[in-house]
Amino acid sequence: MKDKSLSPIGVFDSGLGGLTVLAELLKALPNEKIIYLGDTARVPYGNKSPQTVIRYSLENTRFLLNKSVKLLIVACNTASAFSIDAIRSAFSVPCIGVIQPGARAAVQKAFSSSVAVIGTSGTIHSRAYPEAIHRLNPDMMVFEKACPLFVPLVEEGWVDNHVTEEVARIYLGHLTGKNIGAMILGCTHYPLLKPVISRVMGPDIMLIDSAEETAYEAKNTLKDFGLLATNGAQGGYQIFVTDLHGQFSKVAGLFLKEHRLPVEQVALDEMV
Amino acid sequence: MKDKSLSPIGVFDSGLGGLTVLAELLKALPNEKIIYLGDTARVPYGNKSPQTVIRYSLENTRFLLNKSVKLLIVACNTASAFSIDAIRSAFSVPCIGVIQPGARAAVQKAFSSSVAVIGTSGTIHSRAYPEAIHRLNPDMMVFEKACPLFVPLVEEGWVDNHVTEEVARIYLGHLTGKNIGAMILGCTHYPLLKPVISRVMGPDIMLIDSAEETAYEAKNTLKDFGLLATNGAQGGYQIFVTDLHGQFSKVAGLFLKEHRLPVEQVALDEMV
Repeated sequence: MKDKSLSPIGVFDSGLGGLTVLAELLKALPNEKIIYLGDTARVPYGNKSPQTVIRYSLENTRFLLNKSVKLLIVACNTASAFSIDAIRSAFSVPCIGVIQPGARAAVQKAFSSSVAVIGTSGTIHSRAYPEAIHRLNPDMMVFEKACPLFVPLVEEGWVDNHVTEEVARIYLGHLTGKNIGAMILGCTHYPLLKPVISRVMGPDIMLIDSAEETAYEAKNTLKDFGLLATNGAQGGYQIFVTDLHGQFSKVAGLFLKEHRLPVEQVALDEMV
Repeated sequence: MKDKSLSPIGVFDSGLGGLTVLAELLKALPNEKIIYLGDTARVPYGNKSPQTVIRYSLENTRFLLNKSVKLLIVACNTASAFSIDAIRSAFSVPCIGVIQPGARAAVQKAFSSSVAVIGTSGTIHSRAYPEAIHRLNPDMMVFEKACPLFVPLVEEGWVDNHVTEEVARIYLGHLTGKNIGAMILGCTHYPLLKPVISRVMGPDIMLIDSAEETAYEAKNTLKDFGLLATNGAQGGYQIFVTDLHGQFSKVAGLFLKEHRLPVEQVALDEMV
């Protein structure tokens, strides 16, 4: 019988932002094989309805299950907010999203009883973060703000310029002076905006990066299930996308500091 | 035999920006029935590959042909740039895009021999506008600039604020002082930015709105084919979308100044 611990980890995201999660997984789990699927043909998910995001998430999951993954990681905040329950109902693979790890880290690390969450419109309207935070600590005050321009600004490469800082000031200005003890960066693109957000929110702000927290949770989950690859195992990764466009290398390079990424285009609807 | 001139006109767009084209059609052709399809489940097209945009365009066309449209209008610049030839090869319905009408108007109206084109990354990289312009006048100098942040800024409702003006200055500043005789707004969202673009480019700039020009071309095409609805005919419109999300009314309202739009969600992949 094949040793399941040598099977790959599957990661999906609406596009390429989830490569920040892949980067953290590679650091935390160097002996694991990881298969990443970016649904670039239908990106973004953040402005789409729960029903549509769930449908796409189930298709993405099915693709990764066909690759025999031992653990599924939903690296997209919007997909995590809407789809985790549907995935767990439909499939038996262990499955973690980015919401729960981010919420837990915020509750543990906040230096006050107030937490802020920023994300796409979909993530914020889902109220998934405040619900996860209140399950851990019902007394936490949670401020939320959708920041729809942050993703296009990052993808334009304007991660640290004056326009982005002014946009951050408009979105987040009302949160300064509220004694926020931690801010969850509830979208895979946002860690690239840490310098700008720190300038707007002040140097003391504790920024919670879901990518790091999710990698930590992935390691623990694999341990709990006895599925951790052994130390000698050969790690690595493969990237699949549903649309391979001319900007792939530019955008992927923002999130994963590597050249010549191993990427292949796939059609999800042909598999269904 | 059914009078084909009473059949509807079909319009599709990647999302809701094409409602600017619908608005102009309603003005120019008050006796026509119009069926609009917005592919909101897969929006945007501007950052996707030609192959994927062509596949989506053919699916959209098939949906509208099932509604027996007499004329097809591709209201999306990116889809027009990539897909018109594929649609014309696959189907016999008369079909117009937004590129040709915009290019013709620019050549006719420019007060110098230089024209500028702004649009999504996909539209600009396709080089469809310069090719269309040079077929009409090989001596025209054409400047092009992709402006990827304009669509998210419009969808955020920031059509006339200081951030948008600064972004326009960064994108377009190098075009001032070049004696540009006309600028094509090569994306359905951009007409909403006319005040900002005029402030950056100077009050003399001639801005070509593809929506108006396309409505004019649609009327001429219907006349040429003898398909114009008679004066007494009852006009009207229906909107279909592939994803109906909570922001629909807000975003649609930016482009079509009406409340209570007649909208219905459809699944394209179930039809194929």
